[in-house]
Amino acid sequence: MKIPSVKGTRDFYPPDMTIRNFIVDGWKAVSLRNGFEEYDGPIFEYLKMFQMKSGDEIVEQLFSLQDRGGRELAIRPEITPTLARMVNQQINSLPRPIKWFSVPRLCRAERPQKGRLREFFQWNIDIIGVYDVLADAEVIFCVLDYLQQVRLTPEDIVVKISSRKMLAAILLSIGIARKELEPLYALLDKRGKLPPETFEELLAEKVVDESKRKKIIELMNAETIEQISDFVKSYAAAKEAVDELRRLFELLEVMGVAEFCRFDIGIVRGLAYYTGIVYEIYDKASELRAIGGGGRYDDLLKQFGGPAIPATGVGIGDCVLAILLEEKGLLEKQLSSPKLDYFVACVDKELFENAIGITMKLRRGGLAACFSYKTSGLSKQLKEASFRNAKNCIIIGEEFKNNEIAVKDMSTGNQQLIGVDKFFSQLESK
Amino acid sequence: MKIPSVKGTRDFYPPDMTIRNFIVDGWKAVSLRNGFEEYDGPIFEYLKMFQMKSGDEIVEQLFSLQDRGGRELAIRPEITPTLARMVNQQINSLPRPIKWFSVPRLCRAERPQKGRLREFFQWNIDIIGVYDVLADAEVIFCVLDYLQQVRLTPEDIVVKISSRKMLAAILLSIGIARKELEPLYALLDKRGKLPPETFEELLAEKVVDESKRKKIIELMNAETIEQISDFVKSYAAAKEAVDELRRLFELLEVMGVAEFCRFDIGIVRGLAYYTGIVYEIYDKASELRAIGGGGRYDDLLKQFGGPAIPATGVGIGDCVLAILLEEKGLLEKQLSSPKLDYFVACVDKELFENAIGITMKLRRGGLAACFSYKTSGLSKQLKEASFRNAKNCIIIGEEFKNNEIAVKDMSTGNQQLIGVDKFFSQLESK
Repeated sequence: MKIPSVKGTRDFYPPDMTIRNFIVDGWKAVSLRNGFEEYDGPIFEYLKMFQMKSGDEIVEQLFSLQDRGGRELAIRPEITPTLARMVNQQINSLPRPIKWFSVPRLCRAERPQKGRLREFFQWNIDIIGVYDVLADAEVIFCVLDYLQQVRLTPEDIVVKISSRKMLAAILLSIGIARKELEPLYALLDKRGKLPPETFEELLAEKVVDESKRKKIIELMNAETIEQISDFVKSYAAAKEAVDELRRLFELLEVMGVAEFCRFDIGIVRGLAYYTGIVYEIYDKASELRAIGGGGRYDDLLKQFGGPAIPATGVGIGDCVLAILLEEKGLLEKQLSSPKLDYFVACVDKELFENAIGITMKLRRGGLAACFSYKTSGLSKQLKEASFRNAKNCIIIGEEFKNNEIAVKDMSTGNQQLIGVDKFFSQLESK
Repeated sequence: MKIPSVKGTRDFYPPDMTIRNFIVDGWKAVSLRNGFEEYDGPIFEYLKMFQMKSGDEIVEQLFSLQDRGGRELAIRPEITPTLARMVNQQINSLPRPIKWFSVPRLCRAERPQKGRLREFFQWNIDIIGVYDVLADAEVIFCVLDYLQQVRLTPEDIVVKISSRKMLAAILLSIGIARKELEPLYALLDKRGKLPPETFEELLAEKVVDESKRKKIIELMNAETIEQISDFVKSYAAAKEAVDELRRLFELLEVMGVAEFCRFDIGIVRGLAYYTGIVYEIYDKASELRAIGGGGRYDDLLKQFGGPAIPATGVGIGDCVLAILLEEKGLLEKQLSSPKLDYFVACVDKELFENAIGITMKLRRGGLAACFSYKTSGLSKQLKEASFRNAKNCIIIGEEFKNNEIAVKDMSTGNQQLIGVDKFFSQLESK
């Protein structure tokens, strides 16, 4: 009986796993050199933890399950609530700033599309305990450190940055009520994907007053921070948020990544818990979904029962990133195929156990080695050695009666006879 | 509102993550040097895939869920069915033997106990396409290569080995019907954990004939392969299985790991799909649950709709292993704490942006570097450098007006002034 895999999930055959490892290992290495420490949480949590503060979009996409006691659980669709829970739990003993990263496996019950699957991996980096926009800048730098490391340039990608704090201040000053902000964010977040008429129709459902709607549309058409500055002249809170945004761009300049970054008031983010700077990373041609996005969520830890501690972070998925790297031809250039140090060929059945013994000794010494399961002809085994990408091939044949083996360099084809003991003592001295 | 984590799951704070990474990275490195390639499957599959061939024990422990179309899914409790599915899917293009490994995250709805959690990681290595017991030996070697690498010795651990093929042949020869074998295996697998009277009572429920029961009890008391040999003299199929078991031990001798291994007829394994050699790895003192176990499952690929292809493999969990390493004092000796290459201290607020710029330049050069978020006194920042385990501390102060920085070696305390450009060009030449 044949059972298929579930739609929207992936099977990682060894070549796919090589790509996933290339991406994930890079995330880990860059996080560490940027001073972040790795953490992880469970794959499932109590359902209500994800329903509390993330907003409707993500709640609709939850895979929920029950444990045997009937408790409602869900597979994690994001790791930020887990992060908030974990940090709150040890808040008194963790030295701040807390700089943590994780590479969680996440699941969302979405309709599978290009770059959007029901199961994916997401690089998360977060700084907790810093109010200063410097922390937002450092997180953005870290993402760009990685994206540059995999050879993406300002020709390939762009970080579009805005501020929820600024947006909130302006919307409040226009006369939108605080409780109307969250549903409005959800609509503004989708604006880029909607035809202008549809957007205006949906906006009319949420904002009855036409003059307010006009102001919102005017605001969302602003293209530079300067245009916003004119707009907010008279609102102190909005002015403060604009100044913060300006400072962020100065810091990104200091960090050497400004050419990747630009202001875009259209960036609002789908998650409900953002409170300050928000941003999304896109391919420059805007042909793909967002590679990732993040922002500041200063209230979340408190909402999860902890003290009021500021926080900012980003999430980068593996799906769109892999598509972009593939399309730019950057994967094949950087993927290294696994190499065996030694392939051990044996041309005499009687000596097969010696081939096994030598292989195992090489492995115990830390070297990648394989024997051939078939003691067939030498040329077949050499083919296998070359197929397995072996650097060297050890040949065990007639000379073994003198306790000697032939070692063939697979790149040059050079071959030399050497005593077994001498061979291993040479290896050891290396 | 505070929400706890789900019982039986783990939060991996950075120190816990260091242990998990030490274990998982070791599994990966040893797999690769033993010639295995990495694969992975989805975290959930169709529920029925796990109900088909794994046996009752694991079916009772499934975390099941539904997707939005109402399809029944389950979080994977083991990866072998996924492996069978994936291999069957590409069976015509995969060169054999297929030597694959994986480190899946698995979930089982069990009652949490010491060494047994509801979510865990399991190292899986499998060889597909080899009938010869040599493949079983290679899998066992690979496990022992790892366990020796983390410094466990024959004083610490033992691999207890038996054969389902042998057990089946003997039970059939005693007169047990083929369809009674599977429920009988489940009982025999639990025998070691039951008082003898309880075992005999339960056995009486499954085997009505007293003389058969006596033979089974006599068989299960055998301590060596020799004692079994006497037992099976007249049954050809059993004799063949005993010979195979003997050959396995010879190969383990050739591979240099025989002193870790011994015959134990009590090893039956809980999973239903085993067909040949079976084994479990235990701490020598037998104080913990099994570290792992495996065996041959020659029929599984066929049962999953593929061709008849032999297979053998093992699974090692992270929970018991971590407890054992901890108890033996082997963790602290081998865990390396993460190190920063440079901590950048800045004692003049006006120069802070320079500190940031230098830090980011170090990171872009591949070095682990951090700046201090607080430009407080130097002694405080040096303390932070030492707390963050920095090898060197760069001090940006008065001399920066001459474009110079002080570089302090944190282990020797030596400090030298150097021009910024010279410092970076020296780094580059390294």
